[in-house]
Amino acid sequence: MKLVIMKFGGSSVADAQKIQHVAGRVAARRQGGFRVVAVVSAPGGMTDDLLTLARGVAETPDERELDVLLATGEQASIALLCMALKGAGQEAISLTGPQAGIFADTDHTRARITHIKPKKIHAELAKGKVVVVAGFQGLNPNEDIVTLGRGGSDLTAIALAAALKADLCEIYTDVEGVFTTDPRVVADARKLNEISYDEMLELAGSGAQVMQGRSVEVAKKYNVVFEVRSTFSGAPGTRVHQEVSYMEDVVVSGIAFDRHQAKVSMIEVPDRPGIAAEIFGALAQVGVNVDMIIQSTAQGGTNDISFTVPQGDLKKALAALEPVKSELKAKDVVHEAGVGKVAVVGVGMRSHPGVAARMFKALADRGINIQMISTSEIKISCIVAKDQVDAAVKGLHEAFELGKKTRVKA
Amino acid sequence: MKLVIMKFGGSSVADAQKIQHVAGRVAARRQGGFRVVAVVSAPGGMTDDLLTLARGVAETPDERELDVLLATGEQASIALLCMALKGAGQEAISLTGPQAGIFADTDHTRARITHIKPKKIHAELAKGKVVVVAGFQGLNPNEDIVTLGRGGSDLTAIALAAALKADLCEIYTDVEGVFTTDPRVVADARKLNEISYDEMLELAGSGAQVMQGRSVEVAKKYNVVFEVRSTFSGAPGTRVHQEVSYMEDVVVSGIAFDRHQAKVSMIEVPDRPGIAAEIFGALAQVGVNVDMIIQSTAQGGTNDISFTVPQGDLKKALAALEPVKSELKAKDVVHEAGVGKVAVVGVGMRSHPGVAARMFKALADRGINIQMISTSEIKISCIVAKDQVDAAVKGLHEAFELGKKTRVKA
Repeated sequence: MKLVIMKFGGSSVADAQKIQHVAGRVAARRQGGFRVVAVVSAPGGMTDDLLTLARGVAETPDERELDVLLATGEQASIALLCMALKGAGQEAISLTGPQAGIFADTDHTRARITHIKPKKIHAELAKGKVVVVAGFQGLNPNEDIVTLGRGGSDLTAIALAAALKADLCEIYTDVEGVFTTDPRVVADARKLNEISYDEMLELAGSGAQVMQGRSVEVAKKYNVVFEVRSTFSGAPGTRVHQEVSYMEDVVVSGIAFDRHQAKVSMIEVPDRPGIAAEIFGALAQVGVNVDMIIQSTAQGGTNDISFTVPQGDLKKALAALEPVKSELKAKDVVHEAGVGKVAVVGVGMRSHPGVAARMFKALADRGINIQMISTSEIKISCIVAKDQVDAAVKGLHEAFELGKKTRVKA
Repeated sequence: MKLVIMKFGGSSVADAQKIQHVAGRVAARRQGGFRVVAVVSAPGGMTDDLLTLARGVAETPDERELDVLLATGEQASIALLCMALKGAGQEAISLTGPQAGIFADTDHTRARITHIKPKKIHAELAKGKVVVVAGFQGLNPNEDIVTLGRGGSDLTAIALAAALKADLCEIYTDVEGVFTTDPRVVADARKLNEISYDEMLELAGSGAQVMQGRSVEVAKKYNVVFEVRSTFSGAPGTRVHQEVSYMEDVVVSGIAFDRHQAKVSMIEVPDRPGIAAEIFGALAQVGVNVDMIIQSTAQGGTNDISFTVPQGDLKKALAALEPVKSELKAKDVVHEAGVGKVAVVGVGMRSHPGVAARMFKALADRGINIQMISTSEIKISCIVAKDQVDAAVKGLHEAFELGKKTRVKA
């Protein structure tokens, strides 16, 4: 009998009515002839409530204990979903992460899954039961509860799909799938029927918050095909998988964007090895994630190095750069807070150099000035003024004809 | 180094401020040279909230899953208390019931502790840490989480005290100890410095809700001396232990009472073996707890059998008795809802037959009519009209001079 993993996020189990709805979907799958493992997150809002509680008793809550506390959220969800399933006549059993045999490393609040021993899951599936597993948690070698950090429940689902060799893995969420861009910005943004892991990663990394990148990476590594779809509609979602031949024809899959970036430039730093390591080492030390990095061609023995950081990290970044600037005898550090990033993403662009030109022309046609450019194999990103981000996204969506049923070919 | 078990109920950990207060008390004990195992209940009100959630998703929530859900309450408490302890500089580690090695039977929502394997607790104590254990929960032979039912956290504390051979076991609560009677009824009710297990059991069974009887029974069985004391004051509480010689002199320890009783009599039932079993079997089947039972001397081949039940169970009891009445060809079933029970409790009365006479006279002097009488070795109970319960309690407290520092001798 085929096996399906069904993962439901916090917004899908936020109250009794939603839990009963989810139970209905799960039971229907089981009665449709599938073996089912459901993975659930904590009820929407509960994790935040627990964090507030924790901060009420200690300024910097101990991380081991934070994991013990946060794990109660998913434990509540699995129990409630099983009650709803059994109340509706469907045999089911809940398993916490440790009970399900999910083992992780010792890095509290952001542990990584090390391996899965799915003996108990197999035994319960063999009894015909729906097995409901708590997402986001596992057991470390000290037999402590650990949580997996942001996107941890998606990760649990993908890892279980790999370990159990599931036939299907469905990530249910409050959107209908992955879109060509944010429908709140572009009215004719279109749901993609499929997308490759790499495109999904680039979209995720650019602020399209359907799923965290780490889960997509694990899916790619173990070649787990999954589908992002809506909890509250029956419509098919977006299948995420390795590239297949016909995808090669498609140049651009979607437009990603981020309105909250800041640009920093260090002016006239010496042109010698180790400089970049020093600058970005200093930023890493204070936990600032750097996104785009551009180094100008050396002139007169010096470089300008520019990069972007999340706007909220700008102050921290500037403070960290102060000693580096003195040490390197750089001329200046300049910054601009109000910038945004727009990016076109698509595996097809690898073999189509025309994409960049088309992108730049589309922006120029609309009077949008490009401040920085960075390219990867499947993405071209531009930094523009913050108040031009929406116009840029709309323009690019139009220029690449993403609203059309059939994606444009180069 | 001496070992103390400190148990805190839900009202003691109901919010961040109270948790920090409890952390302060625990840390002070540790710094006072004790090894400390703290046992905590779920934050006040949380168990009720979780039950409401459960009833929202299923009419009759599955009991296995109810345990998974309810266990999150204590898990939240242990994490929060450890955060507060570590925030205050005291090394601590939380253990769920299963992690602490508390094993129980498979009877979900009301499991009994079968044994304790305190290896992990010993290991953490040896590191100098305060060990914080979740009350109310354990692991059953199927490796499922089970909860221990009402008073389960007290039971955890007493069982741990026995298993760890603790030097002290302290039950912290929102009252200062065990009183001669309810201070809300009798202004000069006095806190007892000590009391025997049996007296505590009789007081608990008569509506004095400091502690559930089952925990006291386990304490008695394993000879665990414990102290009931206040979380929020430094005053010594009430030590509960086996009778010691000087206690023999004390006739009456306290006055218990219950305002919510109903009296039922089955009139003229045949006087032959098996009748009582039939009546009380029918009541047990519908879950009605019968308290006092009195059978009149047989006259003309028939008996009258009277008993009391909690007022809330009266309807259920009468319905259950209907078929029994027909079958036994009893003349009638009569009942009275508004009655109360008052009882004098004391180990000393065993050797002092004058206690009963003194009690009846005290009630008669105050114009209180006695409807039923029942006696055990250490308790004499009387059923009186509901609106005379307070006067009876006050009168008995006075007659036995319980407000005085030194208890009256016979």
